[in-house]
Amino acid sequence: MLGSVLGQSPIHPRRGDGRPLVLTGGNGVYVHDDAGNTWIDFDNARSSVLLGHADARVAEAVAEAARGGRGTTTGWTATLDSVLDRLHRLCGGDRISLFRTGTAAVRAAVGAVRDSTGKRLVLSSGYHGYDVMWSAPPALFEPNADGIIDFLYDLEVLTRCLDREPGAVAAVVVSTDAIHLDEGWYRRLDAIARPRGVVVILDEVRTGLRHRPGLQIAGQVIPADVWVLSKGMANGHAISAVGGDATLLNSLRQTSFTSYFEPTILAAAEATLAVVETGEVQSAVLAQGDHFIAEAGSALAEAGLPIEIIGGGAMFQFVCANAVVENEFYRAAGAEFLLFYPGDHQAPSLALSGDALDESVQRFRKACKVLAGRWPDVKIDEKSRYRAAWWEMCGLGDFARTPDETSRWVDWLNQTD
Amino acid sequence: MLGSVLGQSPIHPRRGDGRPLVLTGGNGVYVHDDAGNTWIDFDNARSSVLLGHADARVAEAVAEAARGGRGTTTGWTATLDSVLDRLHRLCGGDRISLFRTGTAAVRAAVGAVRDSTGKRLVLSSGYHGYDVMWSAPPALFEPNADGIIDFLYDLEVLTRCLDREPGAVAAVVVSTDAIHLDEGWYRRLDAIARPRGVVVILDEVRTGLRHRPGLQIAGQVIPADVWVLSKGMANGHAISAVGGDATLLNSLRQTSFTSYFEPTILAAAEATLAVVETGEVQSAVLAQGDHFIAEAGSALAEAGLPIEIIGGGAMFQFVCANAVVENEFYRAAGAEFLLFYPGDHQAPSLALSGDALDESVQRFRKACKVLAGRWPDVKIDEKSRYRAAWWEMCGLGDFARTPDETSRWVDWLNQTD
Repeated sequence: MLGSVLGQSPIHPRRGDGRPLVLTGGNGVYVHDDAGNTWIDFDNARSSVLLGHADARVAEAVAEAARGGRGTTTGWTATLDSVLDRLHRLCGGDRISLFRTGTAAVRAAVGAVRDSTGKRLVLSSGYHGYDVMWSAPPALFEPNADGIIDFLYDLEVLTRCLDREPGAVAAVVVSTDAIHLDEGWYRRLDAIARPRGVVVILDEVRTGLRHRPGLQIAGQVIPADVWVLSKGMANGHAISAVGGDATLLNSLRQTSFTSYFEPTILAAAEATLAVVETGEVQSAVLAQGDHFIAEAGSALAEAGLPIEIIGGGAMFQFVCANAVVENEFYRAAGAEFLLFYPGDHQAPSLALSGDALDESVQRFRKACKVLAGRWPDVKIDEKSRYRAAWWEMCGLGDFARTPDETSRWVDWLNQTD
Repeated sequence: MLGSVLGQSPIHPRRGDGRPLVLTGGNGVYVHDDAGNTWIDFDNARSSVLLGHADARVAEAVAEAARGGRGTTTGWTATLDSVLDRLHRLCGGDRISLFRTGTAAVRAAVGAVRDSTGKRLVLSSGYHGYDVMWSAPPALFEPNADGIIDFLYDLEVLTRCLDREPGAVAAVVVSTDAIHLDEGWYRRLDAIARPRGVVVILDEVRTGLRHRPGLQIAGQVIPADVWVLSKGMANGHAISAVGGDATLLNSLRQTSFTSYFEPTILAAAEATLAVVETGEVQSAVLAQGDHFIAEAGSALAEAGLPIEIIGGGAMFQFVCANAVVENEFYRAAGAEFLLFYPGDHQAPSLALSGDALDESVQRFRKACKVLAGRWPDVKIDEKSRYRAAWWEMCGLGDFARTPDETSRWVDWLNQTD
């Protein structure tokens, strides 16, 4: 059937013909498809699998919980206390609340801050989930029907919006990005928001726990009034969290859902947090990923391909000169059974190590050789870089430009992609 | 710590002192607490555990999926096809979409119907989750900030609202109720909504699959344009679904979340659906529950207690004469380690059978004996019945009354509870 009745189009790897790549199983860095192929996974469920597929520590905790050994869905369990305690130590926050998806968590965080401040307007950058509250505005930098203005990580636009409506803005909510923004950007954000008394919500759904044993930016680079966490928490299991100031988050007390105490998800979170809390996992993922980037970068250069790698070992992106190069590149990688997240971020797991890491480099070199010399006159330019930022962060990176130039880039990106 | 950092107040069984009852494990009808007591569970995670805790078929499927044997979170799996196929056969619908919670599913369904119809106003009855879109209105029967009017299951109010704003209403969304409404109510709802061309969304989060191998009301008693399902799907695991007309649900295509393909939840859903699809489970749950109700009812009568049982074996409620009787009743039941959902619905699992069923009756008889003769002059009256309906359905049942009387009852209920 392959989803003929499915009313959604969830993001997942597809075959060359556009149909879903059907996966039968996975272990560590490897995933197996229904044609008997074994792929090396750099997608890792859009960066939510940090320890590798079917990590034994997580799998055994989940299996024990499923068999009734770690409480029940009916009520409170010690595992919940353990998860809350670990999150509190790793990420801080007077209060922590749990949800099932990043979408639900960010929506709840914004709602709570609106309730607490009595203000409605929200200035946003980046992807915060599928909720209709984030729908496109009638015009660039105008509020949508839900009072959200997308400032596209443009700090001049942010400043302008804050000064245009002083006192009306409940919060600035930003998805932290590990590839296109550096610490300086966040410090400038803080220098704009803080003196104006605006609450800052850092959406670390993608970044939290992957880069260090805690939040990536919130409380590290700049203070965060509220943070949101998800993908790093439970090695792919369905949980997210909101933490921060108790007064700002007061109305979250009203949020409850039936599966709140479901013990397999809490067991997966507890097992994952116990493994990632020392920081060794993040150091290893970074070092292994950096090794891959160095080897892959030299393979791309030797093959004379107009493709660069940006970001770091924990999360990186291939910047391809244009859409043609990009399509051919991912096709060649797929032919070597390298499972990349096309156009977006690559997120290796801890399992990309040893022989598997070597094998991934060999496969990558083969893919590059197939393409070698294909585009001698094509170069990476400003368009390539804006295109990469647009796909990865739903924004335009941190390149110097005027708001008018931002408008022109957005028009171009909306036309070309 | 017991949740000192927790920013939410999720519903769960509590001890006499108000602190959480901490559960260490569960099996079938039994759950164990951290003081070594074994409870018989009629709460079953607010009716989401239908087969019993740690059902072996579900537990083994989850364990196998956790170990990587049923696909990965990265992409499409055969289990997803199986779940969609089973839902389609059991519940119908041109299109089916999956979510993690009932809250997310109903919100998405309403949003899709608004998109499709181009209308905003929604007439609602019952609980549809914690989302702020369902927040209280400024005045009874007026729209809240999100364009939702709660008509409190009052069909005269519904008619009045539909005729007051013809052409402005996107949908009527009703949580189906198995205790306080009979089929006649739904037929009258249909006779009002259908000729006026209003989309009907039946929220079967609580009722679907528990009463029959499919939806309880939608498509059975009356047609449903859109249905929502959750608790019956996966024996307590975190999944929900929206099904119905492809045109109405077209914009759900935009909804995607990271854990979409997470294999343990899909495995739990597949295993549960495979067990419940023949209808034998529902027949057994009903017969066993009816046996309990008959025995418990005679125990209450023999003890002369002003407490009645309404509903059927799959889902029932204790109607207590007043709050004092209610508190004492649940305290006495707790002393016998009967785990009820105080004031709300009771939802036995398939595991309430044989010796466990007999034991539950014995415990119930003991609890009644402790209270016997306590309230010789207290009787169940209209107030008792309205109070029971209010707690169980967030509505006022189907008692004949005028909208003015509805207002007075709501005032009284808001004051007393």
